[in-house]
Amino acid sequence: MSASTSSASKPSTAASSVSAAAFVAAIRETAESVEQALDAFLPVEEGPLGRVVDAMRWSALAGGKRLRPFLVVAAADMFDAPRARSIRVGAAVEMIHCYSLIHDDLPAMDDSDLRRGRPSVHKKFDDATAILAGDALLTQAFEIVAAQETHPDGAVRCAVALELARAAGKAGMVGGQMIDIYAEQKDFDLEGVTQLQRLKTGALIRFSAVGGGLVGGASADEIAALGAYAEDLGLAFQIVDDILDATGDAAALGKPAGQDAEMDKATFIKLLGMDGARTKAADLVERCKSNLDRFGDRAGPLKGAADFVFERKS
Amino acid sequence: MSASTSSASKPSTAASSVSAAAFVAAIRETAESVEQALDAFLPVEEGPLGRVVDAMRWSALAGGKRLRPFLVVAAADMFDAPRARSIRVGAAVEMIHCYSLIHDDLPAMDDSDLRRGRPSVHKKFDDATAILAGDALLTQAFEIVAAQETHPDGAVRCAVALELARAAGKAGMVGGQMIDIYAEQKDFDLEGVTQLQRLKTGALIRFSAVGGGLVGGASADEIAALGAYAEDLGLAFQIVDDILDATGDAAALGKPAGQDAEMDKATFIKLLGMDGARTKAADLVERCKSNLDRFGDRAGPLKGAADFVFERKS
Repeated sequence: MSASTSSASKPSTAASSVSAAAFVAAIRETAESVEQALDAFLPVEEGPLGRVVDAMRWSALAGGKRLRPFLVVAAADMFDAPRARSIRVGAAVEMIHCYSLIHDDLPAMDDSDLRRGRPSVHKKFDDATAILAGDALLTQAFEIVAAQETHPDGAVRCAVALELARAAGKAGMVGGQMIDIYAEQKDFDLEGVTQLQRLKTGALIRFSAVGGGLVGGASADEIAALGAYAEDLGLAFQIVDDILDATGDAAALGKPAGQDAEMDKATFIKLLGMDGARTKAADLVERCKSNLDRFGDRAGPLKGAADFVFERKS
Repeated sequence: MSASTSSASKPSTAASSVSAAAFVAAIRETAESVEQALDAFLPVEEGPLGRVVDAMRWSALAGGKRLRPFLVVAAADMFDAPRARSIRVGAAVEMIHCYSLIHDDLPAMDDSDLRRGRPSVHKKFDDATAILAGDALLTQAFEIVAAQETHPDGAVRCAVALELARAAGKAGMVGGQMIDIYAEQKDFDLEGVTQLQRLKTGALIRFSAVGGGLVGGASADEIAALGAYAEDLGLAFQIVDDILDATGDAAALGKPAGQDAEMDKATFIKLLGMDGARTKAADLVERCKSNLDRFGDRAGPLKGAADFVFERKS
């Protein structure tokens, strides 16, 4: 489903999102395309090399919503980018996301045995294989972005790689994980929690929308609007995550619930209360969509993603 | 010292290397430039973010020969590339090298407490910080390569990033580490040991010469010659490493000696004997230099690097 056909069937108001059913169909379609791309990027091998590939596949082909690739593809669709290009960038950001989950789950970090309802990589394989599988996914993400097939213009490919590296590195996701592990979170105020979220999960969500715009040839102004959208979206995503951790059950989440309170982590619920957190998330979702008004009906799928983030149950 | 001034003071024979003294001066000068670049890429920070930067600096600013950056710079010099560009690629490959040492030293992998004569990163900090510092160095290497300052042509930057990712990833260094950990090395024949070396240490050494050529604007034929040179050089480097492990002392090496035999690892010495290994390394050094004859006197520094690899004591 392209952005244009989805929006053609909707009332032509600037604020409209696609219908929930249309959004679910669109994110499923993207998830399938990304799954196929990841499968092709990670062909099964024999021997010790095969073991690290098996571990990469265990993480990368475990299903999931594939929200980040959807943001890439939906943003790129607004500028009529060929799907063959945007799916590659989507697969790259999903590899980065999966690497971060593998390393975060390690005993030396969050020590999580369960991920997406099944053993995490170090439980299924072992710690050394998990470390190396994460390293290889991180590395391959840049291999995919840098290759000619991603975009004929090397400057565009480099712009995507640069944004991806900044989002994933010490000034982004890695920095967020350091804060999550080492900061005295029980003393965090709203600014502290927001900063942690902005780095740990927000940077890669922001990249997804921006990376899609870049591979689609968006202007600097359009990239800025996509970035503003995704910053609010990422924050809403994390608040909903906190709500689900506090209220959800392990079966739906595919991981244990109630961990934040148990570990005395700084959360938006602790600081705002449950009602305050819900209101804040709703406000952010409305605000994030308003950043896309300039794109008219073409923004339907990205606005649908914002509604989905707010309404998700897992 | 540029390639042209160093070769001007030497007899103009195609087979000539620079003098040992000139080579030592040249590799020291490059090491200093790379150290300055790494220092600038890793500014000290406060708080939990500062902790991961401290760990990155502990690894990346620990001195060392900086052989890989020297190969980048010496190869790029042959094509008169501005040093500001080749030093960036050299710093990137050194970051990848350092990340691999940090992760390899972890208890889950080789469990090494000592690196370059001082505590390895996980001993100085802790396992989580070491994992994240490695991740951040790996990520930043691609950030550096992808940035405009590395080369005005995005296609050139992407070509460098692509080669670097291939050399570092599952079909290169990560794959080599998997074989090193999981293969039944005691049964390895010469082909098996060579394949292990080619991935684990050879791929990044090969990248260094090729990456220098790319950033210098070398032709496909010239890149192929640099690749052939560096493949033989990398193999010679590993054989000398095996010899030093068997005969060296911990003080000179900055790490425990005799580990290969203790762990019953497959080495060239085990398969060829000490004399056989020395002969093989010497043959490889001669052969690798012959690949550079087409470049005439400009190849003096790279030929000097080959002699240095053969004669090094640590």
